[in-house]
Amino acid sequence: MLNMDRLFEAVAEKGHVCVGLDTAAEYIPASGRTGKTDAEAVLHFNKALIDQSIDVAACYKVQIAYYEEMGIAGLSAYSQTLKYIASKGGIAIADIKRGDIADTALRYAKAHFSGDFEADFVTLSPYMGMDSVEPWLDAAKPKGKGAFVLMRTSNKGMRDFQYLETQANTASAAHGKNRLYTVVADKLAELAANCSGTQGYGMFGAVVGCTEREEARAIRTKYPNLFFLIPGYGAQGGAADDAALLLRNGNGGVVNASRSILKAWNAEAKASGMDEAAATVAFASEAARRAIIEMRDAIRAAVNA
Amino acid sequence: MLNMDRLFEAVAEKGHVCVGLDTAAEYIPASGRTGKTDAEAVLHFNKALIDQSIDVAACYKVQIAYYEEMGIAGLSAYSQTLKYIASKGGIAIADIKRGDIADTALRYAKAHFSGDFEADFVTLSPYMGMDSVEPWLDAAKPKGKGAFVLMRTSNKGMRDFQYLETQANTASAAHGKNRLYTVVADKLAELAANCSGTQGYGMFGAVVGCTEREEARAIRTKYPNLFFLIPGYGAQGGAADDAALLLRNGNGGVVNASRSILKAWNAEAKASGMDEAAATVAFASEAARRAIIEMRDAIRAAVNA
Repeated sequence: MLNMDRLFEAVAEKGHVCVGLDTAAEYIPASGRTGKTDAEAVLHFNKALIDQSIDVAACYKVQIAYYEEMGIAGLSAYSQTLKYIASKGGIAIADIKRGDIADTALRYAKAHFSGDFEADFVTLSPYMGMDSVEPWLDAAKPKGKGAFVLMRTSNKGMRDFQYLETQANTASAAHGKNRLYTVVADKLAELAANCSGTQGYGMFGAVVGCTEREEARAIRTKYPNLFFLIPGYGAQGGAADDAALLLRNGNGGVVNASRSILKAWNAEAKASGMDEAAATVAFASEAARRAIIEMRDAIRAAVNA
Repeated sequence: MLNMDRLFEAVAEKGHVCVGLDTAAEYIPASGRTGKTDAEAVLHFNKALIDQSIDVAACYKVQIAYYEEMGIAGLSAYSQTLKYIASKGGIAIADIKRGDIADTALRYAKAHFSGDFEADFVTLSPYMGMDSVEPWLDAAKPKGKGAFVLMRTSNKGMRDFQYLETQANTASAAHGKNRLYTVVADKLAELAANCSGTQGYGMFGAVVGCTEREEARAIRTKYPNLFFLIPGYGAQGGAADDAALLLRNGNGGVVNASRSILKAWNAEAKASGMDEAAATVAFASEAARRAIIEMRDAIRAAVNA
């Protein structure tokens, strides 16, 4: 079974929330760090969060930067976090944004589709061209792995290059502005057409932020076979109804949130006048669960509105 | 002292060769693998190569994919390779092609400018925009670190996006075709102007392949303050005179070669009718040295032609 089909089913069953495990040690309650290295504390916190959310989160996105920061020990925690997600039947997206060619791409694919760092999906960056994306597809097929390729991201700087109007002669050109991100998306849609699962989505989807409302509906309509990984919710400005514009028949996308979930315990402690020093990992993971459910319900409501 | 100035001096003294340590275990003579794990064999081979080349190579580019492929043990070999280069006074470029924003970029910068994975330079990918590049600069300043940002790469697929003509209104637009890679380069040149070393090159340079001859001279002229990391030599089709077109007054760039150096021992064994099974790591590292010197001299000759 393709991971993209598994993800579709997870969304239908558990909602659209992708929990971003961008777990910095400083996000963890002090009591959860005592007597532990940062890497140990992060792994312990991640496990508690996963236990508390496996039935309400569609998937987990593990941002490798937060683990690399801690060196070898951090990457060991990264590896164990991925294995823990798999052991619970969860779906893991390795947010690694790799983009390199030929033999190098195959080495990366081996690294992230098997062994210590095996994940269900990876994220990729397309700047080098389609020969930096396509080798991953061959590597993905034996186990039904998947990928999300950067298309239109959620940061302000995306206007620097992704929004440039180009003179590329592609299918999109006939429909008006042919921005770089649509040229990328046209290529991805072509690729997806050749590797679709039972739900009509290709094994490889795209990263589309929900911070820009204006083109969201057009993007969703134009690329029906691309499953979207949607960043930009919450702190970056995207709301439930922005995210809903990027869904199709209530599915076809997962919406990532990281800090608003990982640090929900801070907000709860503050709101209730609780001393942050008294917070436990159990409390923090329960607060995370509440934040996930609130987000899940907000997106479902926006879909049904 | 900025690493970019150190690199300039290394080029002046030792030539233009950047040794690509894309070291796959299967590139190593069988005798160098016996009784060792792949990661141990790679580290041992790298050390022999570094010992044999420290006086004739400008720098080393360590492609992290080849180490990630071996999981945690591989990343330990990656870490120890970087530390070994530093211990010999060499210059290391971490070929990681990261590209992510804000807080994530800072985490990556901490990971690769300090601790287990500390390198002198990193490579970056610009797709997400300048707010994925600029955070690295602040992180680079305290220790004079540097970066090379993907501009025009050496693979065929670079034409997919990097060569797209855009309607961006930048300095380059007045001079004719305004391809995506020139829009990127214009931004990099602006950045470099604000962080230049004693030789007039910015702390952050660009990756420009030597596989496309046609625009090489124009690129070099247009961006005098960008130091170039130049891939595409040898196997990918670039020759010494192609690389020389991307240099300025005989400096301002390093030319990477990987397999032609790492596997020089295969070629030598074949040419001399030697049994490959009889090859030692010592022989392989000496063959690598000969290949580096040959490449160094070919580029110097092209510069002086």
